[in-house]
Order: sequence, then structure tokens, then C-alpha cells
Amino acid sequence: MTELNKVVFIGAGNVATHMSQAFAQAGIRVLGIYSRKLESAKVLAEKLHAEWGSLSQIDVTEAQLIVIAVPDQFIEEVSKQIPKNNALIVHTSGSINLEVLMDVGTQIGVFYPLQTFSKDKGLHFSNIPIMLECSNEENYVLLENLAHLISERVYRINSLQRKKIHIAAVFSSNFTNYLVHIAEDLLEKENIPFDVIRPLIEETAAKLKNLKPYHAQTGPAVREDYQTIETHLRDLKNIPAYYEIYKLLSHQIIQSRKNKT
Amino acid sequence: MTELNKVVFIGAGNVATHMSQAFAQAGIRVLGIYSRKLESAKVLAEKLHAEWGSLSQIDVTEAQLIVIAVPDQFIEEVSKQIPKNNALIVHTSGSINLEVLMDVGTQIGVFYPLQTFSKDKGLHFSNIPIMLECSNEENYVLLENLAHLISERVYRINSLQRKKIHIAAVFSSNFTNYLVHIAEDLLEKENIPFDVIRPLIEETAAKLKNLKPYHAQTGPAVREDYQTIETHLRDLKNIPAYYEIYKLLSHQIIQSRKNKT
Repeated sequence: MTELNKVVFIGAGNVATHMSQAFAQAGIRVLGIYSRKLESAKVLAEKLHAEWGSLSQIDVTEAQLIVIAVPDQFIEEVSKQIPKNNALIVHTSGSINLEVLMDVGTQIGVFYPLQTFSKDKGLHFSNIPIMLECSNEENYVLLENLAHLISERVYRINSLQRKKIHIAAVFSSNFTNYLVHIAEDLLEKENIPFDVIRPLIEETAAKLKNLKPYHAQTGPAVREDYQTIETHLRDLKNIPAYYEIYKLLSHQIIQSRKNKT
Repeated sequence: MTELNKVVFIGAGNVATHMSQAFAQAGIRVLGIYSRKLESAKVLAEKLHAEWGSLSQIDVTEAQLIVIAVPDQFIEEVSKQIPKNNALIVHTSGSINLEVLMDVGTQIGVFYPLQTFSKDKGLHFSNIPIMLECSNEENYVLLENLAHLISERVYRINSLQRKKIHIAAVFSSNFTNYLVHIAEDLLEKENIPFDVIRPLIEETAAKLKNLKPYHAQTGPAVREDYQTIETHLRDLKNIPAYYEIYKLLSHQIIQSRKNKT
């Protein structure tokens, strides 16, 4: 192989949806979309003028790259359902080792886009960091060339580093999103529109373009304003989950700064 | 009084710094900055060509509005150090009741800008929601006119609502910032540059412009991917604070969706 021009996707979820469309826009041919969820495969495949089908119908005859973009717990199982082929096989997971694909051959790799994907929200791949892993040097170059077609930010990292990055992503994206959900829920209970705090959320993220989070920290905990913390906790008493989260995070913000000085 | 054109600030911290400059840019005269921290008062006052001094030197002779922008626990105490005057007196706190100012007179109010302020980061006030409270109708109109000079988003709310909004702000800004700090710390321990996750943080916030956080939620917890959660927890075992936070937030994300269905 000298390049990866023809790609088959296994999975039709958020990652497959965004990645396959980014490939198509970059001139890569997406041959087929195969998924347990036939309807999802069909919807995505029709956008891409690709074949589609279930996991028992995977056609890899022409494939140069097979992308496994399914939930982590199914990667190994699904990889074993791929028919014999000459393609490079990659998964897109942050937390699964490269070795999980060992059984399917030696032409394996990881193509992990570090981003939060929701089907309903379009995004540009060009700014998304893509984390590559590949034990074979020739294949690594092929993957790197492909990655550069859709993103300006391509990194080579190993499975251990990728796992750490994934944990960091859970804290900085999944958990932060949930905290915003709590905020929305608290406002909703008082009939206050969510729009009231949108500028705050945008500025919180914008500040981090220039400031380190340690220096951007504001709020009652970092001021050690125990009076306000107590008032807030009293107010949250009847929502135990929120009470516990408020208490733990306030405590840790205070502690983390004590340890620094 | 027919308008509030001449303002005195008590406090020279993040809120006073940003708000006094926004007033000055809108053509309001900032007469003086008074603070326990003389040096901070001086730095800010010099930018504004205003008088400055300690709390025992407060000059309110010409003041039409006195803004108390000090940490919550000092508001009441500081308000009692203000010399006799004819001005309207407001504080800028999210969690302190209007009533705390009752002792200083009847011309009192709250002028609470819902934003995260860091001295080192400039920002435009025009998009910042300003929450006003005032029991006197004439004074309310004056405050509202003033607020509209620096922001397009002015809300009238009572002390109870303001407290809820402040709690929501702690979750969606202060706590989210701390989670990003954890992410940065985890990456730093592996010598991975923070830049790697910046696009993720930006997209996490950008998604919330169009999606509700409930629908924007991604990650192992919402997928109930217990295998990944376990792997991550094993990895965090030697940092108890991060372990506890990961565990609690993952658990609550899973629970919160069970309760919805």
C-alpha cells in the first residue's frame, strides 16, 4: 500500500458519523458503513453514497483502511467478525490498548480523535487533535498522511499516554458538561432561564485560552469563603447528589491550593 | 437624584477592577477607589484618574453611587465604615442578601454581574448579565439605566433567586475550571502539553450554545461503559482526590439518567 484512499467503517455512532464525513470531504472514498444498528448505518451511508449493512455483511474486498468506531467493550469482539483482508485496521478509542487488535493480524493501529462528538452538532475536524499509534513504521506514515488530510494537529502517542489523555478528557469535557447540567437543573427549578449563565460558561472556557486553570480559578472555595460555602450547602441539602458534589469539589479546591504553597 | 454619574468603589479586586473600568468607558465618573489593600486601590485609581485611599479615608462627598465590591464576609463591616452620604449604596455579591445593607440606610441595592473575573484577563461587559435588586422603585430605575450603559443583559431578581444563580455559577464555572485543572495536572505528570486538550474544552463549551447539557453529555459514564470507568479508576488509585471525584461524578451521571427514564 502507498496510501489509504478507500475506507470501511464499522460503527455508525457519533465518532463514525463525524470522522467518515471528514474523510469524504477530504477526498477519501468511504466504501461502506457496517453496524449492529442497521438504521444508523443506512442513514450515514446514504449521506456518503456508501454501501451499508450489518456486522455479518461487512465487505472489505477493496478496503485499504478499516476503522472500528464502536463502544470500547465491543472493539475486540467486532474485530474478530471482520473478513480476511489486506487492510490496515484501526480503532478510535482513547482507553483501549493497541494490543486488543493483535488477534486480527499485524496491520493494526489506533486513530483516536480527541473531541466530544454529538450527532446533532457539526464540527470542523481541522482543529481536532488526532492521536495515532502504530507499531509498523510504514503503516504509521500512511496513517499520519491520512490524519493530516483532516486535521492540522496530529500526535504520535503510545497506549499508556492515550489512556491518560482520555482520563484528562473525561474530567475536562464529560464531567464539566455534567456540572453545567446541574447548574441548568438548579436554575430550571426556580424558573430562571439557562441563557442567564451562558455568557459565564463561554467566558470560563475563553479564559483558558490564555490562563492556566490554576490561575483562572475563582469562586467561594478558592477565596476560602466558608460562609458562602455553608450557605450554598444548606441550600443544596435536599438534593443529596448535588450537596455531595459541591462539598467534595469545594474541599478539594481548598486542599489543592494548600498543597501548592 | 436623576441619574448615577459619579461613583465611588470600595474594593479593588477583580470585580471592582473590571466594573469600574466598564463604567469609565461608558462615561461614568469614577471618583475614588478605597480598599484595605492600598496598593491595589492605587493601581486601579491611577488607571481611572480617580482618588484612592484606605477604608478610613473614604470620601463620598460627591458620590451618587457607592459600590461595595469586597469579599462577601466583609460587606456588612465595610458598609458601616462609609461616611454619611446621600448616595445609593450597592454591593456586588451573588450570595449576600440586600438586607445586609439595611443598617446604612434605605438607599440600597444589589448590582451583581454574573461573570468570572480575573484581573489578568480583559473582557467586554456588554454581554455580561447584570442582576439588579432594589426595593425602591425610583432607585431601581436609576440602577437599571446605569446597568444598561455597560451591558445589554439586565435582569431584575430577588435575593433568593440571586443565591440560586450564584450556586449554578459555582457549578458551571468555578467547579468546571477546577476539573480542567485536574486534567492539566494529569497531563503534566505524563509530560503531555495542555494544548492537546484545549480544542476539546472549547468544543465542550461551544456545543452548549446549541445543545442542552443533558443532550450534549458524552463519555464512559453516560454510555455506562463500566469497563472503561474501572480502568480509569485503577489508574487514579494513587491520587485519592481525583479518584473520589471521578467516582462520584461518574456515579451521578449514570444515576441522573436512570431517574429521567
